Amino acid sequence: MVNETGPAAARFVLVGTSHAGNVGAAARAIKVMGFGDLVLVAPRFADVLVHEETVAMASGAADVLVRARTVPTLDDALDGIAHACATAMTPRDFGPPTLAPRPCFEALVPALARRGARVAFVFGGERHGLANDDVRRCQVCLSIPTAPGYGSLNLAQAVQLIAYEWRLALGAHPVVARALQAPPADLAAVERLLAHWREALVAIGYLDPAVPKKLLPRLRRLLLRAAPTAEEVHILRGIARAVLRRGGAAPAHGGDAGKRSALD
Amino acid sequence: MVNETGPAAARFVLVGTSHAGNVGAAARAIKVMGFGDLVLVAPRFADVLVHEETVAMASGAADVLVRARTVPTLDDALDGIAHACATAMTPRDFGPPTLAPRPCFEALVPALARRGARVAFVFGGERHGLANDDVRRCQVCLSIPTAPGYGSLNLAQAVQLIAYEWRLALGAHPVVARALQAPPADLAAVERLLAHWREALVAIGYLDPAVPKKLLPRLRRLLLRAAPTAEEVHILRGIARAVLRRGGAAPAHGGDAGKRSALD
Repeated sequence: MVNETGPAAARFVLVGTSHAGNVGAAARAIKVMGFGDLVLVAPRFADVLVHEETVAMASGAADVLVRARTVPTLDDALDGIAHACATAMTPRDFGPPTLAPRPCFEALVPALARRGARVAFVFGGERHGLANDDVRRCQVCLSIPTAPGYGSLNLAQAVQLIAYEWRLALGAHPVVARALQAPPADLAAVERLLAHWREALVAIGYLDPAVPKKLLPRLRRLLLRAAPTAEEVHILRGIARAVLRRGGAAPAHGGDAGKRSALD
Repeated sequence: MVNETGPAAARFVLVGTSHAGNVGAAARAIKVMGFGDLVLVAPRFADVLVHEETVAMASGAADVLVRARTVPTLDDALDGIAHACATAMTPRDFGPPTLAPRPCFEALVPALARRGARVAFVFGGERHGLANDDVRRCQVCLSIPTAPGYGSLNLAQAVQLIAYEWRLALGAHPVVARALQAPPADLAAVERLLAHWREALVAIGYLDPAVPKKLLPRLRRLLLRAAPTAEEVHILRGIARAVLRRGGAAPAHGGDAGKRSALD
């Protein structure tokens, strides 16, 4: 991530942070989304980057803390940055337009990519958020959609959500899928399974062919919703076969069913 | 949120949590997205819901902690839940399919709404995540897209991201926009502004009409990109007027420009 340029080289700027744990958690939050440029503007404690709690909360992201800088003003933090996004719950007079992150980023990533420009995300302190002057230095004000009665996001949580949304807008890291999801079985195999079960259920007296009570349509609806794999159809037919074998009654097509199962 | 049913009544289940701070931060994370049903399964400390650090990290979400329950097993936690989503970075053999939250939720919300079903999101402990048996009790395994080399999300951060994505899939709370963004000025007003500036720049000797060097096209491109409002056009014409007044030279259409400005 060190040599990246353009929108992928996002910078995260924390202004006036007071809690060491939040600085560490923010470092971890940006690293987990593949970013690494953290700048602190006038934190409450000048040495917050090396506090014990900061390092503990950063967990495996100590490298982000080591590369992080502390500067006196927001202007210092925005060197090399062409587009700054403030994060603030409340819009400010004469401030930039307020947008939710997702629609904003969908338009912003291609716009910055065209011009090779870097972005910074600017977060205010835990107590009072960003000052009006800081918000006005930014081209947009990001507001995370929260519950009407309680919009108080923890600082590190806000950093996490913005880093996540920016990563997704850049193109998400791929999710590791399970080895391979087996495809669903053919519908014909499901019908043969139902016929096999019908036979077993008749044999044990659960299904009365004279009064079937829509049992088969009900089982079919369940099976179609579950979309069983060929292996699962095989297991369910094995159960029908075992029922027929143990049920005592001489199954009408017992041997035949066994053969069919082997062919499925 | 107490009386909500269906997909909006999402439950958040933390299995085997060891850090009190994470329980508090999780309570805050779900409340900020408009949820309130928190269940702990066999936490490391049975009284974690009333720990000082839990309450401190919950900030204004103490009501969520008060309503939260502690139960011995995941089965206990899933009463009244029709669809359980595990969260795990690594897929498990015989486990459910692994999906990223966003595409999963886009399909899941309408499916649950049709059937009036409730969802639970199940999170593992800080050290080892979810056990295989717990993942297998869920219909889907959610994997948050993270950086290939460092996918270690803090527990409360994972809760925040999932709560956020579920809220957006349900339909986000609206973002408070700025009072009203003024619309951009008419292009004709921008052209009158450029003519006014041209006059002022000639008067102060910055623009040589004999060698204009594409100055006007450059300024026009900048203005069109900025899309100024009528008020901003008015300010910029006021500057041109002041330049012409102080520039010393008798402006060619000074009086005329003043009249035009008042009409814009």
